[in-house]
Amino acid sequence: MDFLEVVSTQRAIRRFVTEPVSDDVVRQVLDAAVRAPSGGNRQPWRFIVVRDSDLKRRLGRLYGECGDELIRSAPFYTRALQDPAADPAAARMMKSSRYLVEHFEEVPVFIVACMLSDGQPLSFTQAASIYPAVQNIALAARNLGLGTTITTIHRYRHNEIRDLLGVPRDAAEIAAMIPMGYPAGKFGAGPRKPATEVSFLNRWGTPL
Amino acid sequence: MDFLEVVSTQRAIRRFVTEPVSDDVVRQVLDAAVRAPSGGNRQPWRFIVVRDSDLKRRLGRLYGECGDELIRSAPFYTRALQDPAADPAAARMMKSSRYLVEHFEEVPVFIVACMLSDGQPLSFTQAASIYPAVQNIALAARNLGLGTTITTIHRYRHNEIRDLLGVPRDAAEIAAMIPMGYPAGKFGAGPRKPATEVSFLNRWGTPL
Repeated sequence: MDFLEVVSTQRAIRRFVTEPVSDDVVRQVLDAAVRAPSGGNRQPWRFIVVRDSDLKRRLGRLYGECGDELIRSAPFYTRALQDPAADPAAARMMKSSRYLVEHFEEVPVFIVACMLSDGQPLSFTQAASIYPAVQNIALAARNLGLGTTITTIHRYRHNEIRDLLGVPRDAAEIAAMIPMGYPAGKFGAGPRKPATEVSFLNRWGTPL
Repeated sequence: MDFLEVVSTQRAIRRFVTEPVSDDVVRQVLDAAVRAPSGGNRQPWRFIVVRDSDLKRRLGRLYGECGDELIRSAPFYTRALQDPAADPAAARMMKSSRYLVEHFEEVPVFIVACMLSDGQPLSFTQAASIYPAVQNIALAARNLGLGTTITTIHRYRHNEIRDLLGVPRDAAEIAAMIPMGYPAGKFGAGPRKPATEVSFLNRWGTPL
């Protein structure tokens, strides 16, 4: 596909058909992931491809707890749940996230993106060495007709999920859990504020 | 360009020709940035397009100090400078980074990617709402024949750089400073470990 077509129609997909995702296709997605830049080209990424049903079921249970914690602790999500009419887009997202939690085991494959650490908590700017690779995964999947969504709520059960997947607590953090499958819905441009509304010339506040 | 061609030939470019970058091209790059996903689709990004020469010169001075701090504090870079033969790729990168610092004012344009915050330091996983947009910038630039590199060393002079650009300390953090211009060198695949070497099946350590 043309680059602009890929980048402009990649949106979060949380409902998948049961059609399996081949190893070859997963490999192509990971090949795109490792093309991403990283600080000093140190490529601190590790990817866990989760296909095992039992593992997906256990992950799904923890992930559901994470979703509950998110709703409890983040005002944005609490509001979206309590007053769906106030922000219909957020309410739809909550509904589709709930669907994902309830159908975790049926998701064909998860890619769990990890970043190596020295045991100290990774910082905001260190994340520049993992999320570009994560975005490459989302885009490369779209290019192959696969849906994904970049989720980070694992953070509410980070240690439990690391333990379940064998991720060494003193050597790596999970950056994102990415469900992947052929979409039940459609690709298409998500709603966005135009670039001019979020960009400045030379100094914060000066319109472009 | 084809998506796979873009993703596989996007590499860090730190030397640019003097050819200017038009507003229209910058706009196209930012249009791709805002297509990126973000948590709750809250689009917490703000982009400052820096073209002003005086501002670039002052930023360059601070950026040079950041580079010095990086070399002092990060063993990877200290080693690369002291013993270039041990890691020739890292030594080349250091040289090209030094070139960038010394030619900061000549870079046609910088895009400074910021993320809104509530005044509390942004975390590693919150960065999932800004670096996908940053990667879209790097890819969209490549698609248009423009070189970029995602830099984060501004963190060593974060407040000074925020003040210079008018970024409110209590409401936003700088995620990356991205120099952009037509490349003096060539695009092409950077050296990477193959995906199979950095990927696992179901559990950390199990080969794919």
